Parts: sequence; structure tokens; C-alpha cells
Amino acid sequence: MRSFLALFIFSIASLHAEEGMWTFNNFPGEKVRQKYGFAPTQQWLDQVRLSSVRLAEGCSASFVSPGGLVLTNHHCAATCIQELSTAEKDYAAKGFLAPAESGELRCPSQEANVLTEIVDVTPRIAGVTKGLASKAANEARKAETSRIEKECATTESLRCEVVSLYGGGVYNLYKYQRYQDVRLVFAPEQAIAFFGGDPDNFNFPRFNLDMSLLRVYEKGAPIKTPHHLKWSASGPKQDELTFVSGHPGGTNRKNTIAMLELERDLMKPTTLFYLAEYRGMLTAFQTRGDEQRRISQDELLGVENSFKAFKGQHQALLEAKFFDQKKAEESDFQKRVNADPKLKAEYSGVWKDIAGAVQRQRELYIPYLYFERGYAFRSDLYRHARRLVRAAEEFPKPNDKRLPEYTDARKPEIRQATLSAAPIYPEFEIETLTFSLTKLREALGPDDPAIRELFGKMSPRDLATETVKRTTLMDVAARKALLEGGQTAVSTSPDPMIALAKLVNPIASKIRKQMEDEVESTLIGGLEKLAKARFAVYGTSIYPDATFTLRLSYGSVKGWQENGKTVPPFTILGGAFERATGRDPFALPQSWLEAKPKLDLQTRFNFVSTNDIIGGNSGSPIINKDAELVGLIFDGNIHSLGGNYGFDESLNRAVSVHSSAILQALEKIYGARRILGELKAK
Amino acid sequence: MRSFLALFIFSIASLHAEEGMWTFNNFPGEKVRQKYGFAPTQQWLDQVRLSSVRLAEGCSASFVSPGGLVLTNHHCAATCIQELSTAEKDYAAKGFLAPAESGELRCPSQEANVLTEIVDVTPRIAGVTKGLASKAANEARKAETSRIEKECATTESLRCEVVSLYGGGVYNLYKYQRYQDVRLVFAPEQAIAFFGGDPDNFNFPRFNLDMSLLRVYEKGAPIKTPHHLKWSASGPKQDELTFVSGHPGGTNRKNTIAMLELERDLMKPTTLFYLAEYRGMLTAFQTRGDEQRRISQDELLGVENSFKAFKGQHQALLEAKFFDQKKAEESDFQKRVNADPKLKAEYSGVWKDIAGAVQRQRELYIPYLYFERGYAFRSDLYRHARRLVRAAEEFPKPNDKRLPEYTDARKPEIRQATLSAAPIYPEFEIETLTFSLTKLREALGPDDPAIRELFGKMSPRDLATETVKRTTLMDVAARKALLEGGQTAVSTSPDPMIALAKLVNPIASKIRKQMEDEVESTLIGGLEKLAKARFAVYGTSIYPDATFTLRLSYGSVKGWQENGKTVPPFTILGGAFERATGRDPFALPQSWLEAKPKLDLQTRFNFVSTNDIIGGNSGSPIINKDAELVGLIFDGNIHSLGGNYGFDESLNRAVSVHSSAILQALEKIYGARRILGELKAK
Repeated sequence: MRSFLALFIFSIASLHAEEGMWTFNNFPGEKVRQKYGFAPTQQWLDQVRLSSVRLAEGCSASFVSPGGLVLTNHHCAATCIQELSTAEKDYAAKGFLAPAESGELRCPSQEANVLTEIVDVTPRIAGVTKGLASKAANEARKAETSRIEKECATTESLRCEVVSLYGGGVYNLYKYQRYQDVRLVFAPEQAIAFFGGDPDNFNFPRFNLDMSLLRVYEKGAPIKTPHHLKWSASGPKQDELTFVSGHPGGTNRKNTIAMLELERDLMKPTTLFYLAEYRGMLTAFQTRGDEQRRISQDELLGVENSFKAFKGQHQALLEAKFFDQKKAEESDFQKRVNADPKLKAEYSGVWKDIAGAVQRQRELYIPYLYFERGYAFRSDLYRHARRLVRAAEEFPKPNDKRLPEYTDARKPEIRQATLSAAPIYPEFEIETLTFSLTKLREALGPDDPAIRELFGKMSPRDLATETVKRTTLMDVAARKALLEGGQTAVSTSPDPMIALAKLVNPIASKIRKQMEDEVESTLIGGLEKLAKARFAVYGTSIYPDATFTLRLSYGSVKGWQENGKTVPPFTILGGAFERATGRDPFALPQSWLEAKPKLDLQTRFNFVSTNDIIGGNSGSPIINKDAELVGLIFDGNIHSLGGNYGFDESLNRAVSVHSSAILQALEKIYGARRILGELKAK
Repeated sequence: MRSFLALFIFSIASLHAEEGMWTFNNFPGEKVRQKYGFAPTQQWLDQVRLSSVRLAEGCSASFVSPGGLVLTNHHCAATCIQELSTAEKDYAAKGFLAPAESGELRCPSQEANVLTEIVDVTPRIAGVTKGLASKAANEARKAETSRIEKECATTESLRCEVVSLYGGGVYNLYKYQRYQDVRLVFAPEQAIAFFGGDPDNFNFPRFNLDMSLLRVYEKGAPIKTPHHLKWSASGPKQDELTFVSGHPGGTNRKNTIAMLELERDLMKPTTLFYLAEYRGMLTAFQTRGDEQRRISQDELLGVENSFKAFKGQHQALLEAKFFDQKKAEESDFQKRVNADPKLKAEYSGVWKDIAGAVQRQRELYIPYLYFERGYAFRSDLYRHARRLVRAAEEFPKPNDKRLPEYTDARKPEIRQATLSAAPIYPEFEIETLTFSLTKLREALGPDDPAIRELFGKMSPRDLATETVKRTTLMDVAARKALLEGGQTAVSTSPDPMIALAKLVNPIASKIRKQMEDEVESTLIGGLEKLAKARFAVYGTSIYPDATFTLRLSYGSVKGWQENGKTVPPFTILGGAFERATGRDPFALPQSWLEAKPKLDLQTRFNFVSTNDIIGGNSGSPIINKDAELVGLIFDGNIHSLGGNYGFDESLNRAVSVHSSAILQALEKIYGARRILGELKAK
């Protein structure tokens, strides 16, 4: 952390090098050609796009065989793996390999998307918002979005999303093929997938086989995937040009200083304090026993990962030189706007409007986080209850008046989530719900009217125990009945978890409405204007902030300088054996210890490259100029965490599993001949 | 918290009202007379000073009878109460009342001090540091301090401390009578002492009987205390003048902006993340069972209290208007210094020197915190081991070359701590040590050479379990043998906890030395210069930052405005019954429920006043102009937390138990006639 503080400095010079998460319809091929002598053709782009997969819960992936085989990270399949596991069959601990197609197991709540088309809908959105004040414009924008998506989603197998790019400078409709039958084919043991655990997370050198293989099915059979990536057995060389095709989740590089200050001073600390305490609770819960350890493992890893990632982002914002750089960029932008009378008249007031909305956001943020964003209710059962209560309330409304996540275009996800067979563990539910309810009461204070209404004379533990123990929502059939029974079924349900969700719903909806009307509308409108001003001032060959839509970044395999020393770009399999202590998280699985004599320990294992990525890119293929898979993105280095706000090519690195390590592990450690045959069928 | 963020704004006008934690030899009597028509005489000051008690672990108290009876907070005696409790006799849960003197129980590790004399030693310190560079000056200052303290501490019953005031502008020798036999006389149940628990902590209205009574013994008999406070049965009226005599632990009001920035951006977040996670761990540990709950309760309450207090301080630093005010004050100070050529020549470079030292502090802070300040080793057994290892290393050195806490003047505390009969619970020790070792490895990274040396192939849990299970330090006799056996005994000891402390000691000592030589010496020298400049610019009628030495503050009983509403200054006993839910932390003890019919529910229970206090003032008597005890300080309101950096009379409030509530509880709830007889013997 010390070195991070000392070195995390953006220089103006580096800002315009390999930075960028480019959309497939605005890729700067010419710029790449100038540096590397190669630019992707349209055919190349189409092939890569159609080979790329989005996992709807928040990851990236790619097709790697003609038979629907999907390569992604182990941590992207971790929820599926845990949901399929039991105390007797613990696939997280022991790994999983389906011996035949018939043994491939369906993930209870996984959805895969493939981007088939991008349509510009900017004029349609602009048409309905023109001349309206920010709140009315926001409502009109949402309604038009719902209409466009509904028109597009003619079958359940199409997923249609209107995406705001450049903070609203451009609106595109993204059309995906939707697949809800995704099955687990192979996963190594957690111990090697996440070797080094939290201590090594976001660090390098690294020794992780963070991979898993899934397969997409339709109507009970694997789909055909003529578009898939060929495999490069030799992987990339140092300095070789690499591309990453994936779905970066979100960045805030275009946010104003007022927005970044709120993030630095309120949002990040609030989240970090919450996660830190939750982590402590979860770690101690794990000491209750082996089964408790197993059922809480996925949640703990997620919390640890978020904590470390957000902490890195917070550090970046606290770095005075970095923040001064952001301020200088904003000043430069403002100066250029003010230098042109027309731009000045139109845009110079935007920063102040945004700052005003941010002030209001500061007041609403805590209750919004707790009531609407789930901080108060960490419980799968509660999430089911809330979804059912909201669905009952929203579905009867006209499509374009609903909350966006309950429109007709979203119904397949609602249904899949409600009917998911993922196991729920009451003992764990009680602890996590007790924790979050305690934090809720602490955040708002015991005298807040909503708190008094929720708790009455009950303690957080009383309320959690009562609702978890007495609810019927453990049962998929009960949830199905409530989903299908709609408003009547929900309003007459005596279920205590449904009752809790009904009590919370008006409070949460009210604060969400306030946030939308008084904050979000101004921020969206303001950023949209700044996006237009930015086009006017800096031109259009810029990339939009990440939005969990498909992007292509380019870079090359390269180490970096840390404390005056060079960090080399590659590690080898042998390094894992050297680093192992036999104790979690530095314990290698038995399979590796046994296979050691058979392995070529000089085989490259992990590597770093300058590709500009961020959370959501996990599982992305990293490919060479021939569109061959040379590796699998699974992490960024510690410096990359500041990538939420800016990119520094001298320090930010993407971390991948090397393609040859994957082949060697599948062959020599896991004996996965069936899969190897598929991969080599290129 | 929202209201706190919105309202926590210092106005220049209010800065110079009732602010101030004044030393007894520089009290601004004339200023008090102008406002209230009363000023303390020297006799008044002496009587109050000699009635005031410091509890060495970090609290304040007062004598309230001629027979050595001491009134302080329940939370100031909480460690003693827990140390005296067992699973069968849980005095924290059930309360404690000694039926007769013979039933008063000795606290295993409590020490009481009474300030008998203040001597100015500024010339002696100035004499040895004159003309020296900062590192040499620092060493000379420490050596002279050790000499002065040793000359003073002619017997073990004298505690002598050289105190740096005004950041080193003045050095005073504080001479205390030291008492190590302190016994528990009375404590109510935790449930009413801390009614409302963490949710109500630092809030008001409040309903706490946060009191306990101790008695000071010498040679097996209670001491005579002719100087003690008389009791005011009626307590204070609204707007009545009140004084608080106590030991505020520390404030940073005179720190430079560079120092405050480090605190805001690194120190406070680091501490808060650590405490938040530790709290989560402890809360979950409590669910293991009743006994685990009991043995971890004191630690959890301490952690929760620190977390909330530090969070409030952090919020104050994040409040832009407040920070801008601090910046404006520094600018004003710098401008005045620069306006005078002589002052400019001498002092204008000091801020830059301090900023340079702060930069170095930023680099050293994390390892310093973990290795030297105990963040890595949360374990009573480890603390014993470290004390023994350091004592063995330090005692053979000449007195003035030792670490200050191991000089001859400090030996009685070392001995008392080592031989304390306080119970230690291995199950809890393993969990807390595992936690802190895990955080150590996380903070420094698994590849840090010190981490590799400490852990080898062991995990944090291995190391904690191994050392706790195999150590002999649970046994007082084993500790005694090592203390008395000195260097030979310690160096040949096979004890694994001693071995761990021996391994850590050179690492910790080195980083401490770096911190002293490269940071502390410059900060001390710099602040000393700024103190002199401040005297030159603003005159001497200012008060020094708090230093856990006796101070007198004045103020009056007054509510405040919050979100446009007035918070009245008093609560009544009946309010506790209204607030009770029957569930922890809002459950009243059985004794209160049973006594309810006998109580006068209109009796005033808690109240607020404008006195300027801070952590360490807990247990301070709050008195009227006749030096009668009208209440017992136990908390500050949420706004008072910013008091670490500045005082805002419109919002900062001290919170006390009302004197008449104490009398009524002792009489009608606890039937404590023996004590009441003593209190009334005035």
C-alpha cells in the first residue's frame, strides 16, 4: 500500500496512450496501426464480438469451441459452483469435471448473452426529452427506453438494452441473444483458482488458474457456435500486441470534481466501513464449522474482493497529485467551453447544476443505500420477497410507467431469479440479516420514524430470526405461486418475509423517487450536456465510460517499475510450488502436488499487459492480432484500481492466465481429454 | 449523521466563547467573572484539584467522601468489573454492591492518581536542547525528562510526569500521589449504565446511570480524604454555571494543516477500517455462547466506542467548511508571523519542516502502527510477553537512555501490570490474535521480509494457536519469574509467546526509532516553535491542547438546536421506561422494573452542558460555583467528537448523570444505605 501511495501519479503525457475501453462501432483502428502495424478489419471485429459472451451477473467470457463451450474465470462461476455443491459434494473445494456431456450440471441462476446488434437510438431519446425540465425529461427518457426495449424484445430469447454512452451523449440499443441454460463443465479447486487468496488479490507476480468452463444449452442440447475463438497454444510474447474483448462494468472517468468529492468523502468510506465490519462478521462465522465455512465462502470472497477494490479506488481519490490532475482536466475543459461564446452560453452553468444535485445526493445517500440498495437486507430470502412485492406492484402498471427492472423486456430475468433452485441456508441468512439490520438501525438511528416502524420493540436479531424461520420462501413452489398470483396473492400473503418487504417497499420507493427526481435527473441531464460539450471541444475520437457493454481495448504484454525495480510480465508454473506454504490461502491442491513430476514447471502461468480493463472484464478473452486466445483476464494489478477514475499506462496492468498453462493443467493435472479434444478442434 | 454533516460548521464568532481545557495554574478567572459574576479563588481551585482523581488507564474521577470513596463512570470501571467477574458471578450483568467494607473487591489493574504539585521545568528542558538539531534535541529532551522524573519519584507512591504543554512551549512536572490498591464498592447493571448501547452512544436525549463507586486503600485500609466534593442533591438549573475538573486525554487543535491532512487521509481511515472489521469479528464471536459473550463484552464495547468516536472525528475533518476554517486560521497565523521580520526569520519555515516530517510519517505509519502500536498483536498474553522482553532489554540500561515507559519512575506500573491477576481467556486470545496477525499480513503483504520471518510457513491462525496454547504466561508466577530474572531469564526462556515477542522486538524498535528520529523530533521541535510564535502573536491567555493532565473547563447547562428543533438539556427517569423495549441494548434491568413504583419518575436523569471536554474526561465531576458535585460527566454529544480539532459552543455538549438521579437510584433501587450515609456525611 505504501508503494501504491507513493507511485500512483498520473502524468498528462501518458493519458492518451493505450487508454480506452472502445465500443465495437468506434474502435480507433488507425491509431493501433500507427503503433503496431496492424488494425482489425470489420470481419475481425464481427468474429470477435460474436465469440464474446456476457455473463449477466457481472462477468465476461468467450466461446472456445463450436459446441457452445464457454471459457470464463473460476470466480465468475463461483456462485454457480457453490449453488451446485453440498456438504458431501463440495465442488468449490474439490473441483469439478463432467466426464461426459450428460454430467454437465445446470447453474441455477446463470444467464449468458451474446451481442448481435447495436442500433443508434439517440434521435428517439432526444426527440422525447427535447425542451423538458430535468425531472420531466428523466421520466420521458425512461418511458421511451421501455418502449424501445419492448419493441425489440419480441421473444424471451432476445435481451434488449438501451445504453447511455458518453454520459448520455449517445444512446444505443444493444441486442443480445439470451441463454438461460448454462451448465458447469469444468472447474479446478478453489485453492488453485484463487491461490494466494485475499493477500495476493490485485497483486502480481501471481499464480492462479482462475478458470472454469461452462456450456450454453438451448432446448436441452448444446448450442452451435460457429463464431468462437481459436486457441493459441504458445500464448503471447513480451511486447506483443494484445486485445481484450469484454464487458467492463463501470468507470467514472467523466464525472465532475463535485461528484468525485462526494465519492471520496462519503460514498467510499460508507461502503468500506460497512464491508470491513461485514467481513469481520463473516470471517468469524466461518469458525463455526466446516459446513458454515462452505456456505459462507462465496459471500466472504466477494466481500473481500469488493473491499480491496473499493479501498484501492478510495486511495486513488485520496492521492493529492491524482486529484489535482483531475481538477486540472476539469479546469481545462471549463476554460475551453468558456472561450467559445456559444458553448459558454449553453454549457458553462452545468458544473454548478451538478454540484447542486450532488449536495442533495449527500443528504439522501445513506437511507437510499440502506433501503433501496439492499444494505439493510443482506438475505436471499428478503431479496426474493422484495422481488415478488415489487413485481406484484409493477406488473399491473403500463409497461412504460414501471421501474426499468420490471418492464416486459426484463420479465425473463425476474422469472429465472424467482424460480432459481439455488440453496438457501437459514442459519447463514439469520446472521447476515441480523448484521445488516443492525447497521441499518445504526445508520439511521433508533429514533428515525422508519426504524421505529420496522423494529417496534424487536431487536435486529429478533426480526431476522422471526422472518427467516417463519417464511415459506425457501420453497420454490411458494415463490412461484406468489409470482403468478400477483397483487392479490402478495397482498393477502401472511408470510413474514413478504410482510417485511411490504413494510419496507413504500419507504424504499419514496427515497428512490426522491433520488431520481432530485438528483439523478440533474446528473443525467448535466452529464449529457457535458458529453456534447466534450465532443465539441475534444472531437469524437474518444471512448465512453464503461457501462457493462462490450468493449475492445488494446495494449501489449509488458511489466512495470515498482519501487525502482522491474516487475517482469510472466510467471511460471514452478513459482506456485515455490510460493506454497501448505496453509490456506497458500496451500496447493492435492492434484497439483501429485502432478508436479509430470508438469513442465517452466510453462508460463500468469502474465500482465497494458490493456485498459476494470471490474466486469473478469473472464474476458485476451487475444492476439490473429484473434487467437492467448489468455484469460482475471484481475488487474493494485494500480489498476484507480482505473475507475483514470488510466496510467506506466502502472496499470491487466492480469491473465496464460493459454498454455490452461492446456497443461487440463491435460496433465485434470486429465480433461474430452475438453482438450474440443479446444483443439479448431 | 446527516444532520451532523449539515450542521457541523465552526463560526469564527463562537471560537472564543466557552472553549478551553484550562490548566489549574492558568485558569481565566476574570473571563468567567465577566460572564457569570463568579471566579474561583485559589483555595477553591486547590480544593477541587485535590478532590480530583485520575484513573491511570484513561479516565477521571473524584473523591466524594472523607473515607476515600471515588465516584467515576461505570465504563471507567468496566475492565475491573469484568476482571472480577466469572461465569457464575457476572457483576457486569448483575451489578455489584459491597454490603460492608470487607466485601469491597480489589481491582486487578487499577491505579488512581491525585495531582499534588505542578512545577515549571521549561528552563531545564530548554537548557539541554538549546542549539541542537532536531534528532539530538529529541534525545536530550528525553534524557532530561527521565532525570527530572527520577529525581522527583523518591518513593513508589509518587508518580512524576514531565508534561509538554502548548506543543512544547511549556514543560511542567506533574507530581501525583499514586495509589495501586483500588477496590470496587458499587456498580449498577451494565444494562442501565449503558442503556441504549452503541446506538445511543454520543447521542442525547439519554438515560444512563453510567456510574460506579471505587475506594482507594493504602496498607489495607481506606485512605483519609479531607479534600472531597460535597454532594448537591438538587443538581444544576438550566443556564447555571458549571465547571468540569478532569483529565481530557488529547486534542489536536494546534496541529498544522499538513498534520490534519495525514490524519484525515491515512490515519483515521486506517484505524476505522481495522476497528470496523474487528467489531464484526467480535460481534460474531459473541454468538458462540453466553460465556464467550461475557468475556468479550468489555473489548467489544471499547471497540464500538472508539469506532464511533473516531468516525465522528473523521467526519469533522471531512467537513469542507470546517477544514477551510482551520486553513483560514493557519493562514492568519502565518500572515501575522510573516508581518513581523523577527518572527518571520525565526518561524516562517516551521510549517514546511513539519510538512516534510509528515511526508515521512506517511511512509512509516502502517508498519509503526502494526509492530510498535500493537495493531498486529491483540492479545493480553502477547502484551505480557512484550513488556517482559522490553523490560529485560531496557532495565539494564542507564535510566536516561531507556524508553520512557521503562524508566525507574515507571517501574511500579510495569510491576503492577505484570503481576495483575486479571483473568485471560485462551479461546478469546486465539481469535483476537488470529485477527490481528491476519491484518498485519494484509497490511504489509505476504512478501514483506518481516512477514516472512514471522510467519514462515504458518498461517496467522497457526501462529496464534501455537503461541497461546503453549505459553506459560497465563501463570502470574511465571511472569514474575521472568520479570525478576531479567535478561538471562528472558533470553533463555523457551516460551513461544516470549519467542514471538523477541522476534518482533527488533523490528518494532527499529521502526519506532525511525519514527522518533525522522518524524517525532521534527514535529516536537516544530510545534514547540509554533507554540512560542503563538504566544508572541496571540498572547499567553490561551490554553494548551489536552494531554491527559488535570484541566478545568467552565460552561453552563444548555440544550442546543438540531434540524431547527431545540434539544432540551434535561431528561428524567421516566424517559428510560418509555424508551425501553425489553431487548438489549434497550432492556432495563430487573431491579429497575421492580423499583419503578417507588421511583419519582420526574427526577432529572441526564443533562447536557457547554463545558469543553473530550475522551479522558469520562468520570469527571461536574460541579457548581460552590464546588458541589451536581453531576458526573460520561459522554459528549455527537458534535463534541469534532472537539478533537476545535470547539463550537453552539453545538458541542458534555453529557452528565444528574446528581439527584444517582442518589435516588442508590436509595430506591439498590438500597445502598451504607454508601448514602457516607455521601451525606458532608
